Amino acid sequence: MDFQNYFPIWNQLTDAQQGRILGSLTRRQVEKGTVLHNGSADCAGLLVVKSGRLRAYILSDEGREITLYRLFDRDICLFSASCVMRSVQFDVTIEAEKDTQFWVIPAEVYRQLLEESAPAANYNSEVMAARFSEVMWLVEQIMWKSMDKRVAAFLLEESAIEGTRLLKLTHEAIANHLGTHREVVTRMLRYFQNEGMVKLSRGAVELRDEKKLAALGRA
Amino acid sequence: MDFQNYFPIWNQLTDAQQGRILGSLTRRQVEKGTVLHNGSADCAGLLVVKSGRLRAYILSDEGREITLYRLFDRDICLFSASCVMRSVQFDVTIEAEKDTQFWVIPAEVYRQLLEESAPAANYNSEVMAARFSEVMWLVEQIMWKSMDKRVAAFLLEESAIEGTRLLKLTHEAIANHLGTHREVVTRMLRYFQNEGMVKLSRGAVELRDEKKLAALGRA
Repeated sequence: MDFQNYFPIWNQLTDAQQGRILGSLTRRQVEKGTVLHNGSADCAGLLVVKSGRLRAYILSDEGREITLYRLFDRDICLFSASCVMRSVQFDVTIEAEKDTQFWVIPAEVYRQLLEESAPAANYNSEVMAARFSEVMWLVEQIMWKSMDKRVAAFLLEESAIEGTRLLKLTHEAIANHLGTHREVVTRMLRYFQNEGMVKLSRGAVELRDEKKLAALGRA
Repeated sequence: MDFQNYFPIWNQLTDAQQGRILGSLTRRQVEKGTVLHNGSADCAGLLVVKSGRLRAYILSDEGREITLYRLFDRDICLFSASCVMRSVQFDVTIEAEKDTQFWVIPAEVYRQLLEESAPAANYNSEVMAARFSEVMWLVEQIMWKSMDKRVAAFLLEESAIEGTRLLKLTHEAIANHLGTHREVVTRMLRYFQNEGMVKLSRGAVELRDEKKLAALGRA
């Protein structure tokens, strides 16, 4: 068990607190596409990602999506324990974007830990502030950036995360990340292709001119 | 000094913590329009509103604004103490929307309080979660709601806050709240006037049919 190395405040907890966590911790493995958390009714507990990738997004009544942030190795998923924080008044969905391994600290154990431990409660604040910062970045993108810039920035981000220039992404998937319609993305990608920035093929987008994309994304 | 009644966790603090707060607390009064906090460089400390109204907003490079949330009597302003939380990676501006009285707990005193006190750290998390929830509501509005619905909902909210049907608001001010352009708001308000929902005059909007506005805002 190397959970200790994944939980940054481990050494600031008492023996009793460490014991309760280790005694209740479960380890899970889910396949790509699994929905781990869906709305406020669902309160599995705190998730600590060992490896893989999770995506947090919101859904409109009409089924449109927008990605809020991603969680990677060593990240903490708070909103799967949102029942512990009564002021969290919104619902996010958490889905595995890759096969993912993670630990779960049950909600009740996490609640007691926050009540007792100032380091745990402060860490909780910091994780919330980090997610809040990502959502604020998104608000600025949505408000002040046109869709061509957002698509360009998204393609570069995906390429960096995946470590490849050939992105296996449908236009629909890109639209769901950005909270727009497929047609908008298709139009934009065709324009990018005409400008030599990408090459399109079935279910994939290949980056051809990252410099030009970056210049557009920054503009 | 009735600060104690405005700080919900007062009774959960030790005598020493209460003493440090009372010994460092300042009381301030500012006029409508005063900017109390501007970006991350500025770190006055935790503000506790006694009376009045504050508005938190973000600004684009081009000077466009969008309102994130408002703070009323007894509300706590965290982001004026954002230097205490290193994961807060965004800048908000806080402005008095009315003449406002508030207390300030200096950042250094607040930092020490969070470090020592689990109740204080948990309260900090809850306040952050409440602001986060307001921003998530805003994201949903921006993403899934058209501007006519947002203007209608905004007029009703203003009317409820001010306790009047006659809102002293320019089209520019409404645009700044909603993060759009004045022309968009003007076009929308004229449409509302044609539909009998409002009556426009210089620097003011009078609500005439709240039911119809509410039906539009909810739609």
